[in-house]
Amino acid sequence: MSVNRRITLAARPVGFPKESDFLLSELAVPSAADGEIVVRSIYLSVDPYMRGRISGAKSYAAPVAIGEVMIGGAVGTVVGSKNPGFATGDIVEGMFGWQDYAVSNGKGVRKIDPSLAPLSTALGVLGMTGLTAYFGLLDVCDPKAGETVVVSGAAGAVGSVVGQIAKIKGCHVVGIAGSDDKLQAMKDLGFDAGFNYKTDTNYFAKLKELCPKGIDIYFDNVGGALTDAVIPQINLHARISVCGQISQYNLEKPEMGPRWLGMMIVARAKVQGFLVSDYYSRFPEGFSQMAAWLKEGKLQYNEHIVEGLENTPKAFIGMLNGQNTGKQLVQVSAPPA
Amino acid sequence: MSVNRRITLAARPVGFPKESDFLLSELAVPSAADGEIVVRSIYLSVDPYMRGRISGAKSYAAPVAIGEVMIGGAVGTVVGSKNPGFATGDIVEGMFGWQDYAVSNGKGVRKIDPSLAPLSTALGVLGMTGLTAYFGLLDVCDPKAGETVVVSGAAGAVGSVVGQIAKIKGCHVVGIAGSDDKLQAMKDLGFDAGFNYKTDTNYFAKLKELCPKGIDIYFDNVGGALTDAVIPQINLHARISVCGQISQYNLEKPEMGPRWLGMMIVARAKVQGFLVSDYYSRFPEGFSQMAAWLKEGKLQYNEHIVEGLENTPKAFIGMLNGQNTGKQLVQVSAPPA
Repeated sequence: MSVNRRITLAARPVGFPKESDFLLSELAVPSAADGEIVVRSIYLSVDPYMRGRISGAKSYAAPVAIGEVMIGGAVGTVVGSKNPGFATGDIVEGMFGWQDYAVSNGKGVRKIDPSLAPLSTALGVLGMTGLTAYFGLLDVCDPKAGETVVVSGAAGAVGSVVGQIAKIKGCHVVGIAGSDDKLQAMKDLGFDAGFNYKTDTNYFAKLKELCPKGIDIYFDNVGGALTDAVIPQINLHARISVCGQISQYNLEKPEMGPRWLGMMIVARAKVQGFLVSDYYSRFPEGFSQMAAWLKEGKLQYNEHIVEGLENTPKAFIGMLNGQNTGKQLVQVSAPPA
Repeated sequence: MSVNRRITLAARPVGFPKESDFLLSELAVPSAADGEIVVRSIYLSVDPYMRGRISGAKSYAAPVAIGEVMIGGAVGTVVGSKNPGFATGDIVEGMFGWQDYAVSNGKGVRKIDPSLAPLSTALGVLGMTGLTAYFGLLDVCDPKAGETVVVSGAAGAVGSVVGQIAKIKGCHVVGIAGSDDKLQAMKDLGFDAGFNYKTDTNYFAKLKELCPKGIDIYFDNVGGALTDAVIPQINLHARISVCGQISQYNLEKPEMGPRWLGMMIVARAKVQGFLVSDYYSRFPEGFSQMAAWLKEGKLQYNEHIVEGLENTPKAFIGMLNGQNTGKQLVQVSAPPA
């Protein structure tokens, strides 16, 4: 391939993103200056957090500028290196963006051992997704055997791992997802129970039925009306890990909901927002434990792979719509044999 | 006095409590059985949490039953003892309720050294109120010098102490209260700034002005629209201590507000509900530190004392209406000379 196809942000989405908010264009394949590497991407990661990075609202990082290549994690092959830390042929993971080829100074780039697991896992269960589940559940919520854990977005990349880690810790795990196929996928991963929030719309009653001992931990990827139904059922010293609020990302104006801080006093409960990047110093611990669980067969993962860089905006929009089960990826070139 | 006047709960209030929700009656003065003491109350404590205890809603303790003496802390004199741990004449603090005389088995009753400070402080700055401020600020929020602390209900019994402890810790302290007199009282206690939420109704703009570096800590006694204005201005790793939600206690139906969990992710912030009773094992530390600060002149306190047991319901309703500055007390008999 002699060109670098790249997807840039064409417009800031209002409400739900459209494919026309992105633009595919071509440039020459870049070359490495001193200290740099050139990476040809194999898989791109498509994640809910990206919705925040293309909005104009205050967030934890500067938004992607109009005309800029869309940010995102990717795994790829080093095809050129003037950085002594990397050799041609190395498999690496980093924030390479939505493009075929990326230039990097190597900072924040992680070498991947291709013998360990399929390369795509470096973006999922053995990547930021897995660590998000790991730290967001274990560090924020400290689950104890016998506790009841509710996970929203439970069939998604993070939620599906959260539920499995909670099972490893001996918890009763209830997942909430948006289709019967997703429910089945959750059960196949070992979740104790779950419901389809699109068809079982009395969330409060359904949670009451599935969580007879109340809710000790809520790992929230979704927010909105699901959270409203969880909060009145939390137990003493409940912990709520706020990982995502995907139900709110595409609203044109903020949604209203019942106030519930008074219930936090009654339960002496904690709500904690977090980002995986805050755990950077503990990444080695997380990668090591997740790899061990994977090897022991205690963790499984689902992937939803779309082919072709040009389909990345569509895959992103589909993920925001909940069309994926497990980690949403885009394959942009063939993995090495 | 040959009778024991007692105030019982006559009806569960709907919305704002009325005096007719309470009933004054008389019984004989009780006497002590083996292991018991009889206490004649001097001061009764009147607190926001009592609103929750007379509602039918799920809470952290069983509600006061209709016909039962209203619960509450009091300080008084032991006037009869068949408990070897207490002697006639001891000054004690405990949950003696809204009555002249109470019988107790001595459990949870604390002896007060009357030489240390005025007896009324055993219900305020050197009592549960002071410890609520102490643990709710220091343990839940861990304030650091230079951080900005916002306190709602800042002229109240807890809020006024929270602000002073935050000043001891070197913070920039902004209080929110409901009258200009209260604002002045806060400033007299050393708060850096504040506003009257009844007259300055653009809470967001006012907080923006008074907290130019954003908000690191929010100690919330009030909730509602004040919280809505605080949350969008929290800094990275902000801590929110949920002590009370007095704006919500007397609503006939739950209030709606904008959803803000997404902002907790952006700021990686924590919201924690707490009750002082959860810190029971650390009470000695709290009492000792508060007494030391009081002695060193680093802590001051305001009291709002109403005379006469029969006026307790009125004092309670007035406190819910924000008529008190500092700790609301009812004096039911003369302190010892």
